This record gives sequence, structure tokens and C-alpha cells, in this order.
Amino acid sequence: MSYQATLDRIYAALQPVIGEGKVASYIPELANVAPDQFGMAVVDFAGNVCSVGDATKRFSIQSISKLFALTLAFQREGDSLWTRVGREPSGNPFNSLVQLEREQGIPRNPFINAGALVVTDMLASRSVNAAQSLVDFVRRLSGVADITYNTKVAQSEISTSSRNAAMAHFMKSFGNLHNKVGEVLHAYCHHCAIEMNCVELARAVCFLANHGVNPWTGQAEIDPSSAKRLSALMLTCGTYDTAGDFAFRVGLPAKSGVGGGIVAILPGQCGICVWSPALEESGNSHAGSLALEMFTSLTKQSIF
Amino acid sequence: MSYQATLDRIYAALQPVIGEGKVASYIPELANVAPDQFGMAVVDFAGNVCSVGDATKRFSIQSISKLFALTLAFQREGDSLWTRVGREPSGNPFNSLVQLEREQGIPRNPFINAGALVVTDMLASRSVNAAQSLVDFVRRLSGVADITYNTKVAQSEISTSSRNAAMAHFMKSFGNLHNKVGEVLHAYCHHCAIEMNCVELARAVCFLANHGVNPWTGQAEIDPSSAKRLSALMLTCGTYDTAGDFAFRVGLPAKSGVGGGIVAILPGQCGICVWSPALEESGNSHAGSLALEMFTSLTKQSIF
Amino acid sequence: MSYQATLDRIYAALQPVIGEGKVASYIPELANVAPDQFGMAVVDFAGNVCSVGDATKRFSIQSISKLFALTLAFQREGDSLWTRVGREPSGNPFNSLVQLEREQGIPRNPFINAGALVVTDMLASRSVNAAQSLVDFVRRLSGVADITYNTKVAQSEISTSSRNAAMAHFMKSFGNLHNKVGEVLHAYCHHCAIEMNCVELARAVCFLANHGVNPWTGQAEIDPSSAKRLSALMLTCGTYDTAGDFAFRVGLPAKSGVGGGIVAILPGQCGICVWSPALEESGNSHAGSLALEMFTSLTKQSIF
Amino acid sequence: MSYQATLDRIYAALQPVIGEGKVASYIPELANVAPDQFGMAVVDFAGNVCSVGDATKRFSIQSISKLFALTLAFQREGDSLWTRVGREPSGNPFNSLVQLEREQGIPRNPFINAGALVVTDMLASRSVNAAQSLVDFVRRLSGVADITYNTKVAQSEISTSSRNAAMAHFMKSFGNLHNKVGEVLHAYCHHCAIEMNCVELARAVCFLANHGVNPWTGQAEIDPSSAKRLSALMLTCGTYDTAGDFAFRVGLPAKSGVGGGIVAILPGQCGICVWSPALEESGNSHAGSLALEMFTSLTKQSIF
Repeated sequence: MSYQATLDRIYAALQPVIGEGKVASYIPELANVAPDQFGMAVVDFAGNVCSVGDATKRFSIQSISKLFALTLAFQREGDSLWTRVGREPSGNPFNSLVQLEREQGIPRNPFINAGALVVTDMLASRSVNAAQSLVDFVRRLSGVADITYNTKVAQSEISTSSRNAAMAHFMKSFGNLHNKVGEVLHAYCHHCAIEMNCVELARAVCFLANHGVNPWTGQAEIDPSSAKRLSALMLTCGTYDTAGDFAFRVGLPAKSGVGGGIVAILPGQCGICVWSPALEESGNSHAGSLALEMFTSLTKQSIF
Repeated sequence: MSYQATLDRIYAALQPVIGEGKVASYIPELANVAPDQFGMAVVDFAGNVCSVGDATKRFSIQSISKLFALTLAFQREGDSLWTRVGREPSGNPFNSLVQLEREQGIPRNPFINAGALVVTDMLASRSVNAAQSLVDFVRRLSGVADITYNTKVAQSEISTSSRNAAMAHFMKSFGNLHNKVGEVLHAYCHHCAIEMNCVELARAVCFLANHGVNPWTGQAEIDPSSAKRLSALMLTCGTYDTAGDFAFRVGLPAKSGVGGGIVAILPGQCGICVWSPALEESGNSHAGSLALEMFTSLTKQSIF
Repeated sequence: MSYQATLDRIYAALQPVIGEGKVASYIPELANVAPDQFGMAVVDFAGNVCSVGDATKRFSIQSISKLFALTLAFQREGDSLWTRVGREPSGNPFNSLVQLEREQGIPRNPFINAGALVVTDMLASRSVNAAQSLVDFVRRLSGVADITYNTKVAQSEISTSSRNAAMAHFMKSFGNLHNKVGEVLHAYCHHCAIEMNCVELARAVCFLANHGVNPWTGQAEIDPSSAKRLSALMLTCGTYDTAGDFAFRVGLPAKSGVGGGIVAILPGQCGICVWSPALEESGNSHAGSLALEMFTSLTKQSIF
Repeated sequence: MSYQATLDRIYAALQPVIGEGKVASYIPELANVAPDQFGMAVVDFAGNVCSVGDATKRFSIQSISKLFALTLAFQREGDSLWTRVGREPSGNPFNSLVQLEREQGIPRNPFINAGALVVTDMLASRSVNAAQSLVDFVRRLSGVADITYNTKVAQSEISTSSRNAAMAHFMKSFGNLHNKVGEVLHAYCHHCAIEMNCVELARAVCFLANHGVNPWTGQAEIDPSSAKRLSALMLTCGTYDTAGDFAFRVGLPAKSGVGGGIVAILPGQCGICVWSPALEESGNSHAGSLALEMFTSLTKQSIF
């Protein structure tokens, strides 16, 4: 069955569940998104696109930006990055302070909020405008020039970021945050507020499936070994505290966001993105998770 | 044996251990205090003073201010205060975030840092200048007009308060902090920087031993039942995470600070203060704890 | 107001709340106790008894036995006892394994289950029949010769003791249990199953209020300093994880059991026991806690 | 480069580090194993074997048996198995009780001790002799008839199993253990004491790499989807609390044991086993982890 036929079949099968779950509600801009939307796209390295539904409608990428932030910081810092953030699943809700205390201000991995704040701090140490440097980076990864962040969403995030502020101050108390808390939060909330659609996101993760080479420029963003390693991190830590279950059910490296998007890669084959705003309790898109599970079942393609 | 004879005997006996331990070192102003100082004072409700050593040398009262802040907030808020802070020993190091997370932003008691921040937030909601209102309060409690805070100490505390900032933001994320984090921290760091000597502090806690009545003004600061209740809280929570051991060894309601001071009360009898800057691992004055233990052994007076 | 008048007033005032709460239900023998019972007794050192309600009806003393077990072990072991069990409030539900793990098999205090198992292990190392030696001890403390344990209750306790077995094996893994787990559990479940009434229990704790001297024999069970210290431990740790609140509200050293009994002491004055089987969520008798709170309010006598 | 050439190169390169680390020491039988041993084997589905070093010397498979126990239980119970054990990384040391308490007796995954005890309990509910049924199973998976357990090792394990006993009793208190604790521990300690060599273990995991089909019998042990799912579980949970790091560095589904063995699979290609008794702090073989990391680097084959 072709990817397009697979997507069509998934889209048809999931009609009854699209909209089931809860849209993220901590800021008005996310709470007002209609829950019954669904898009999915698969893009290969030649740029061929298969898609269904709302695949060209932009949404707030939220925590998916953590994947791009990590890649950009990793480009710049190399393996020294891992002295400030771990590589283990958190085993706890995604914004827990407990683990951070036990482990002396070193976040468990770059995909929990605390870890992404440290990664953003690294970006801020090397850029005048960390958020803009990340926007530039995702434009290059996707080959789409007009991607940007939604300022209103970013402002709302900042005004409700007490918990992230707490984590940032806490890590600062351990010496693991070098820039001012306010600056780091500003950059963090802005890159979470980047808006992209499924096709753009599927394109933007192709470099990871393509051994680190950006198919649209032909340039290596990272070396093949690093691409493999970031993929492993997506598998073990990419979908909040249900990463084990996600790996069990889906079997693809993936990164999700509370905007309802999930990116995934099939190494050597393609980039994938699904979007549906209604979330499971874990914070992952409900229909999106099911769609990816169907995708690997129908195509019999997973990393295992 | 008279109180003065008791103090003399304690002072003589403790000479070999005065200075043992570590002076608090997180800000220069505390780190530079000479460790081999010791003072102790007992004051009865007629104002009779017994004292030894450096009993009239002022020092930074630090967490002892939490007792005065609590009393002042309790005067204003009454029992509604307890909806925002608990009354149980913490069972954890004094600045732990773990418990705060488990208990949804409600600190265990008013004598851990998180609890004192909430209490300070209450004061800030009712005063233009919370720190000054607390200074006024301890002046009235002690009957000494020139008590004030050390601005340099307060500034140093603010500049090293990442962990307290983390806790404040964290509680704000649970809705348990109403004023701006910066304002609360400002007031908190200033009231911790109040400077008093042993005689002044022994005078200032007499109202608690005297059923709530300020002996110097004749006015009831709090009612007798409340005085009993605050005393109970001092016993179970007043000396960081070694309160159980302190109650076991000493048997008096007490509150300690990392400046090396400890206030205690003998209900119906007197207020007590001991000061010696070198601390045990728990954060309590080493010689001060031993002095209070000797005091109850020699006088055979404790609450038990 | 005399103690008898005080008890009469308490008994009248509490009529509406007697029976409110939940009777302990983990074994049939406790679940079948009628919840609407209430008794209270005050005994002075001359043996004068004031009492109301069901003060001479025996009930299962349960965790109150931990106080007697501790005293007996302390008589035998002295201060070396404290190398195997701490003196700090637990700050956690009474049968938590978390803390035990963090603190390497040393229970926080002798009044949580883990601590009482270690204390029982000490008794078992020095007695052929630890449970019987404890029965003999409470007979001597109360001056009542026919006190014994309920074998049926003990058997039921053993058959539902998976959690205590877990804790015992866990402490054994840290080397802090010397006898066989089965033997320790057997002794523990039997001394929890001792049955006494309010008058007998009030008599049995008089030695603690009387500086360690057993008023019925004139002999010192422990020295005055130790009596003070055990009383301090009751105050900070005697009523499960609400000890702080209990000290705040009542202000007396006390020890409670899930059979609905609470013993308390007024140092220098008397022993007290109240019993009412319906419990608060914390595991303390609901009407019993209120009765003790009224007692200190009406008599204006507490340790503070 | 052929697999044999790869193994030769690995063996040569690792000579300096073989023996670095600590041999498991909690039972004499493991403590006495010489640390400077190393073997590695790769077996394809036609039965072709490449190997180096001590690849045919048997060792104690220890926690690797958890993989076989899980597969056998999964054959029998199907997806209902997951109601009693989770699928998430533990994020904590491998024998922690904390998580078990927080999650009401449901272990995080089948590869931590608590989870393997529950799995063994399932086996015990369906077999008169659970340990023997597991021995029979690994004989069939490997096609080697004389595999068995070392009785002396099993006895030593039983005599030092206080912590496992604690966990078993604890889960029983939550209703998540159906057989007697002693019986479950007996079976558990015996299947941990199974002895196999690298070639036998590489053969025994081939079915997982071969879509669930046992290459030596041609029979499906589990369906392809289940093979994929168990592989995912190995990746996220198979190497104690460093599974994230292991996935990052190696990128293969794997299961390790404190005997120094690690099995891994390359889906669609082969089964792999490496053995070297000296361990990292995490409990994984030090040289073994490095060998697998080199294997995926040199062959450029991993699941990512």
C-alpha cells in the first residue's frame, strides 16, 4: 500500500475519534483551537508529499521546537552539551521539580521543560536573539521562508510561565543557567510559539531520517552518528512520560507538542507529521498517536 | 541555682566547643562573622536580665524573623492563615521543593523558607512596606526603638536567592503567592537581615511565654490560646529538620537562624536567647543547641 | 473546674460527633467494633480516677503498644537504641517505605510501623517471648494483673501484614533487623493486640507524667531525663503524620492507635486516656482528638 | 567489513579495558568470577556464528532471564499482562521501592526486579515448576538441550533476597502478587541462575530479530507485532536506569544482566550477545557496552 493510500485509510478510520480528548487550555490562544481538526503528511527526501486533512494548516508547534533547539545547540556545542543535560527518560510528569532537585540541577533530558530551558540558555549564550536564530534554523530545515512565531501566543506563554520560571531559578541556584532567567524564558516562549503545518514539519525532520543531511540544501546539518543519536533520544524521551508506551505501540522516533502536533521519522525513508489538537492525559495528541500507531501497523515499517 | 549561675556554668562548660562547626557562608556578610563568639540571655516578664558573653552584640537574626513574621501575619489573618500554609514538620531539608510539589504549593509549615515566603506575601498584601512593618513589630515586642535591618546583608541575600525565587514562582504557579515574586523576595530578604542581640531577642519572645501579653506594653499581642499554639509550632517545626531531636534533647519551644541565634521560651517564666555563629550540619548553632540542652538539664525546667 | 466536671462537659458536648469517622477496617475484629462508643479517664498519681462513658470497656490498644515497647526497649538498651531508629517526625503516611529507602533502613522514629518493628526486634533479641514480656510490662505499669492480648486479633493482623513484612524484609536488607522476619512480626502483631480500657491506660502512662516513677510500685521505670525525652517524642511523633497539628491543637504529649484509643500526659499532674473507635483520615480517633483539645482548652493546662 | 572481522576488531580494541569495573559481589558465586574475561557472538537466522574470546563459556544470565520470562508470560497472558506491569522506563535505580509505592504496587516495567517478580508470579500461576518451564523455553529458543540453572547460585540468591522479598510482600499488599512470596522468590532466583554462553544467548534472541519466528523450529513464538513491541521495551527499559544513554550510544534493543552478559538484536539480521563480567556503576557490563557501541559504529547498523 502506498503512503498516500495508507494516510487515506488512517484518515477514514480515525474519523470517529478525531476531537476526542482535551485541547491544551493554559493559554487562550491554544484553548480556542477547534479540537476536531486533523492533518497528516509524509515527505520523502526527493520532496514528494503525501497528505490528508488539514495538513497545510499551521498550528503552534510548542514542544516540537525542543527538537530543533536541541539540534541547533548540538551543532554549536557538540558533546559538551551533555555535561549540562542528561539523556535518560524522566519517569515523571514533564515539568517535575523533584528529579531536578535529586539530580542537582541537571535536567534528565533535553525534551522535558527544564532540559529545554538549559538548551535555550545555551542558544542565548551564542545569539543576540535566540528565538530568531531558531526561526532561521527551522526555515532552513524545512525550506520554507515565511515560518515565524506567533507573538500573541508567546506573550501568553510568558504570562503563565511561573512553573518554568521556578525551574529556571532553581537550575540557576545550581549554576546550570548562565543567562538571565527573564531572557531565557523570553526566548523559550517564543520558540514554542513558532507556527508550522504538517507538510512543513515533515520536511523539517527529514534531515534526521536522512543521516543528518538536509535534503533541500544537500548540506550535512549533523553527522550520521549524531542523527542516529538524536533519533534514539526522540524514541526514549520524545513523548513526555509515556515514551515507553509510545515506543511500544508506535516504534518510531517522535517528538510531540501540546499544540497537538507530533513529528516522527522513518530512518532512511521519510519525515512524518500528524496534527490533531485534542490531547490524551499525557499531553500527546490522541488522534495523532493513534494515527502513527496505525501507520506502522499498516506499512509494517518501524525501527524494530 | 539561679538563672545567672546557670548561665555562668554553661558559659564555662562550653568554652571548649565554642567555634566548633561552620559559619554560614552563602553570603559574605555572614561568612565573615568570627565563629568563636557566644552570648546568652534570659529575661523575665519584669524585665530582669541574666546574661553572659556577647549577649549585647547584635547579629543577623535570619530565620528567627520567621517567628515574628508569622505572629504579625497571624494577628492580621487569624486562622484563615492556615489555608495557605500547613502545621506539620517538614521531614526534609529546609529548602526542599519536593514536598511543595507533592502538596500542591502549600508549604508544610511557616518556618521553612517556602512557608515564610507565603507568610511574607500575606504581610505584603496588607503593608506598603512589609519589611518595615516587621521592623516596627519587633521594636514593639522588644521595647527597643533602634532595631533595624542591615541593608548590605539584605542585598546580598537577594543576589543569592535563586532557590527562594524558584520556590516563590513555583507557589505562584499553584496560586499561593499573590504579590509579585520580586516584591515578596525583597521583603523576605530584608526581614531576615534584621539585627538584634541576645537580650533584645529574649525580650522580644517574652510575649509568647507570657500567654500572648507583651510585658513591656501590657497589651495582648495574641490571645493565650494562640500563644500556646505558636509555641507548639516552634517545638515541632522551629529548628529545621532536626526539630524532633531538638525537642528530645532540649524540650523547649525554639526558633533558630543561620546567623547562629536561637530563641526559646519557658512558658510562664521567661524568654531565652543564645547566639554562637558556628553551625551544626542542620543549620542550628552548635554551641547554642548545647547551651539550651544544658539549661534544661541544670534547671530541670522544660515543658515536659 | 474539677477534672470530673471537665470530663462531664466534654462528654456532653461531643455527643453529636461521637461515631463520626471510620472505624479501622483492615481486620474483621476491628471493623466490627461499634463506632458510637466513647470513654475517657484521668488518673492522678494517688490513683484517683475521673471518668466518663465507656472508660472501663477494654479495646485493642494497637499502636499505643509502641509507646510501651519503646519504653521497655529503652530500659534495656539505653541510648544505643538510637543508632537503629531516629527521633524525627516522619512527614509521611505512617507506613511509608520511601523514607526508609532514602535513609538506608533506619526508620525515622519508634512510633511509625517500621520503627516499632525495629524496637520489637530489640525486644525479641532479649526475650524468649517478646510479646509476653510486653504484657508483663503493661501489667506492672498499670497495676492490673489480667491484661493480655487478643489472640484472634493478633492472628488477623499477621494474616494481613504484607506491608509490615515488606518493611521488615527491607530493613533486614540494610542489616537493621536481627531476628527472623516471621518472629518479629509475630511479636509485633501480638503486642498490638493487647486489650486495655481507658482507666488502665491512663494508669499505665502515669509514670511518664511522674518523672519516670511508677506511682503504683514507687520504683523508677526510667530516670526523669528519659521520661522528659520520651514525652518529647510523643509530642513530635505520637499521632501519625498529623503530630504537628495535634501539638498545635492539643498541646500534650500523646500516642494514638487505630483501635480508637489515645493516651496523653500532663507532666507532673496525671495520665489521660480517651477512646472512641471512629477515626479521622489520619488514623487518630475523631472524637478522641476533639476531647483532648477541649480538655486543654477547658483546663487551660497544656505543656505550653 | 564482515561481522567476524568486526568482532575481531572490537576484541583487539577493547583489550585494554577488559576487566575494568567491578564484578557483582552480592553472592560468592558471582564475586569469584574472573573479571578479565570477554566473549561476543553474532548469529544469523541460518545459524551462522561469528564469535571471539570466551563466547562458548557459560555464565550466569541473571536479569537476561527477565526477557525470556516476559516472552513466556506474554505468550500465555497476552495483553492482559499489561494490567499488572507497566511499560515505562523506571528513571530510578533498578530495585527502588519508591516508585512502587507511588504507583500502587504496579511496577514500571517487566525488566526491573519488581516487574520480573510479577511476571514470575504469572508463570507460577500456570506452571507447577515455573523455573523449569523457563529452562525448557530457553532450550527451545536456543536449540540447546542441556541448558539449566546453577543450584548453588540460586540458593545464594535466595539467601540474600531480603530486598526482593520486601518488594514481593509490598506488591502482595497491593494485591499484585497471587502466589506465595516464598514460591515466587524461589522461581525467580532459579531462573536468574540459568547459565548460558554467548553463542547460546545470541541464538536464543534470534526469534525477536526474526519477527517472532524461532529460526531453529520455524514456529512463531510470538506474532510480528509482539516481536516489535518487546524489542521496543528492550530499547527503552532493557539496561537498568541507563537505558536512555544506552539507546543513545548503541541504538539496539538489548537486555543486560549483572553476570556481565548483554543480549541485543539487529531486527531482520541477527542476534548478538556479549559477555564480560566487570560492570559499570549502572550494573551493565563495561566492556560489553563498549563492544556494542563499537559494533553499531563499525557496521553502521542500528535501528535508527
